[in-house]
Amino acid sequence: MDTLTRDVFVELDRQDSLAGFRNQFELPAGHIYLNGNSLGVLPKAAKARAREVVDQEWGQGLIRSWNSADWINLPRRVGDRIAGLIGAEAGEVAVADSTSVNLFKLAAAAVKLRPGRSRILSEPGNFPTDLYILQGLETFLDGKVQLNTVDRDEILAAMDEDTVLVVLTHVHYKSGALFDMAAITRRAHEVGALVLWDLSHSTGAVPVALNEANVDFAIGCGYKYLNGGPGAPGFLFVAERHQAELQQPLSGWFGHANPFAMRDDYEPAEGIKRMLCGTTPVLGASLLEVGVDIMASADMSLIRDKSLRMGELFIELAGQRLSEYGFGIASSKDPAQRGSQVSLTHEQGYSIMQALISRHIIGDFRAPDILRFGFAPLYVRYVDLWDCVEAMAEIMANGEWDRAEYRKRTAVT
Amino acid sequence: MDTLTRDVFVELDRQDSLAGFRNQFELPAGHIYLNGNSLGVLPKAAKARAREVVDQEWGQGLIRSWNSADWINLPRRVGDRIAGLIGAEAGEVAVADSTSVNLFKLAAAAVKLRPGRSRILSEPGNFPTDLYILQGLETFLDGKVQLNTVDRDEILAAMDEDTVLVVLTHVHYKSGALFDMAAITRRAHEVGALVLWDLSHSTGAVPVALNEANVDFAIGCGYKYLNGGPGAPGFLFVAERHQAELQQPLSGWFGHANPFAMRDDYEPAEGIKRMLCGTTPVLGASLLEVGVDIMASADMSLIRDKSLRMGELFIELAGQRLSEYGFGIASSKDPAQRGSQVSLTHEQGYSIMQALISRHIIGDFRAPDILRFGFAPLYVRYVDLWDCVEAMAEIMANGEWDRAEYRKRTAVT
Repeated sequence: MDTLTRDVFVELDRQDSLAGFRNQFELPAGHIYLNGNSLGVLPKAAKARAREVVDQEWGQGLIRSWNSADWINLPRRVGDRIAGLIGAEAGEVAVADSTSVNLFKLAAAAVKLRPGRSRILSEPGNFPTDLYILQGLETFLDGKVQLNTVDRDEILAAMDEDTVLVVLTHVHYKSGALFDMAAITRRAHEVGALVLWDLSHSTGAVPVALNEANVDFAIGCGYKYLNGGPGAPGFLFVAERHQAELQQPLSGWFGHANPFAMRDDYEPAEGIKRMLCGTTPVLGASLLEVGVDIMASADMSLIRDKSLRMGELFIELAGQRLSEYGFGIASSKDPAQRGSQVSLTHEQGYSIMQALISRHIIGDFRAPDILRFGFAPLYVRYVDLWDCVEAMAEIMANGEWDRAEYRKRTAVT
Repeated sequence: MDTLTRDVFVELDRQDSLAGFRNQFELPAGHIYLNGNSLGVLPKAAKARAREVVDQEWGQGLIRSWNSADWINLPRRVGDRIAGLIGAEAGEVAVADSTSVNLFKLAAAAVKLRPGRSRILSEPGNFPTDLYILQGLETFLDGKVQLNTVDRDEILAAMDEDTVLVVLTHVHYKSGALFDMAAITRRAHEVGALVLWDLSHSTGAVPVALNEANVDFAIGCGYKYLNGGPGAPGFLFVAERHQAELQQPLSGWFGHANPFAMRDDYEPAEGIKRMLCGTTPVLGASLLEVGVDIMASADMSLIRDKSLRMGELFIELAGQRLSEYGFGIASSKDPAQRGSQVSLTHEQGYSIMQALISRHIIGDFRAPDILRFGFAPLYVRYVDLWDCVEAMAEIMANGEWDRAEYRKRTAVT
């Protein structure tokens, strides 16, 4: 293979049909941001929208904005737009709460749909909050359901007649590895189980076709590739066929058939609305809408093509420039098995990432030894990959990673 | 009693030692806003803070802001400031999720502390989401706990050895009626039950002394008297003595002892942090902090004095100016029994409120016949009460309420 040069990457950017999207985002000057898989960047339009929601809708409209600014329909309106990104229909997705709370609602409701079955299946090393929430459910139901984790290559074989629900993250948060959603969902249904997919690292990064795969339930994150802002509300999907029978325990007033009748008895709303709980976080949901709108205007197949090419080039570059420094690759070299990120490993990973960040090249570190680099195709340039790997090569060559200030640990990295 | 005049109210404003606070809020020109008990107004400082969080902390700081802007400590930091408003200690309050979700977490955890007891006690007509959440818990636990509602004057007598938890709203959302928190808490403890107070209509409006009353748990709303913005996160209180034993089912990663270790097994954090679930809604929590800071700078005894005086004057004015039009008073005339609002009743209440709103005098209507007027002492003037009642008298005298456009019902009023 030819040796890559920076000019190759410059040329790829020149030819990139997604290049125009970058201008829709605010990026700090002089930075390379490869952490959109953790917290997405600020859409320029979100700045103006935040002013509008705060100054006008809240400040001037006050309580009237529930109607006049249509706050009341935010969960469904933004949900419908997300539906288009994940192969769902309008009315199957709502924006609400956090990803963790949404998982609890759906998992708790799902296990009631298959009485007599007791096993929830997941994998070790799944995104921690998913496992924690399922453990909380297990304890809370006094062990009537048990969480069982098996390695990913044993998932298909582990499903049986006692399996009530399979909960997996479509794109792995650390390695970026991608599950075969259709095959796993099919097998689950063969044994009579239900499937819940966590799309936190998929939505807006890889194509997702929930209904084509006949998926039952899904959850996802608003602040990663959807660029909804820090702690943006999450979303949830319930296949239309399950909506009428689904009863979730967090039966707050926003999920009531007629919340403003203020009756004493809970009566679930029709459709996806019954999955809501408390008052919509208006500001968060409104800014999420901005990010979702940008994503919805992009062609997902172009996003996936660029993302895969970036992954491939990054791995190739790392092989050429970093091979002598002891790095490993935690991501699959098979693009079909890879989300929109590449993870390297290095025993000094933490310090190396700190050195990169101090050069304003921002990825992140996950214990014990993972350096994660996320490629959000709407704003990351090919040349950013070159510059990132060059910087790493310099950091390794000159021992820059080994400075004292890079060896401290902080709460969040 | 002397006939009141507008000059009396103008003079009261001149003498009001809280009058200076009004300038800290944005109020739409020409409006009288008596709905701060439903959605508080916009602090001027929140406009600047929203720009800072969006443009700088998110836009420029990106993922680094979890540390550099201290996002990670928002739940506890804002919680500590709220603690000062409700007679709690630092470390007993956290900001998280919605009021409804917080109620679920606390009630679900509380019923596990008193095994063998099965009855949750509340009152009919409690704020609906509280009853709905408790009904959801009941269903979810397959009836192992049952919600039992009894009229408020029977609550003390209804508590018994089977009562596990008493859940009441301190200030009633419709009538403004105030419970005797200390007496109810004391009686609950006598029978071995726990108590959870909903402070949604209390915090920032009436003095609350949780620890003095030996309260076990509380929840509250961020977007009413705390002026945190539409759908602001809620808060929760857990008395220090219960924190170590409390296990809540929504065990998401933000409640983990070490969330960024990304281990597979949930281990609850020490203290109030274990009550967190998903990623903090940064923007919402940051704007809530602005509202809380203003409230914390005001003297609660002055707030209560002004609020009571306003209620008294409003009731007196309504008696003088509206007696011929068929209004009733749903709020107690005894100030000790009244929160920071007065509710009138009228069979044409809906239309009358619509007519008021079209004059930019904003209260709200609650079925079947309640007109609610909330007095947020930091920004409502005495003269606003006069002008409101005058407008109502005119609306009744000239039949203005009976126009067709005021008789339509909309989704949210």
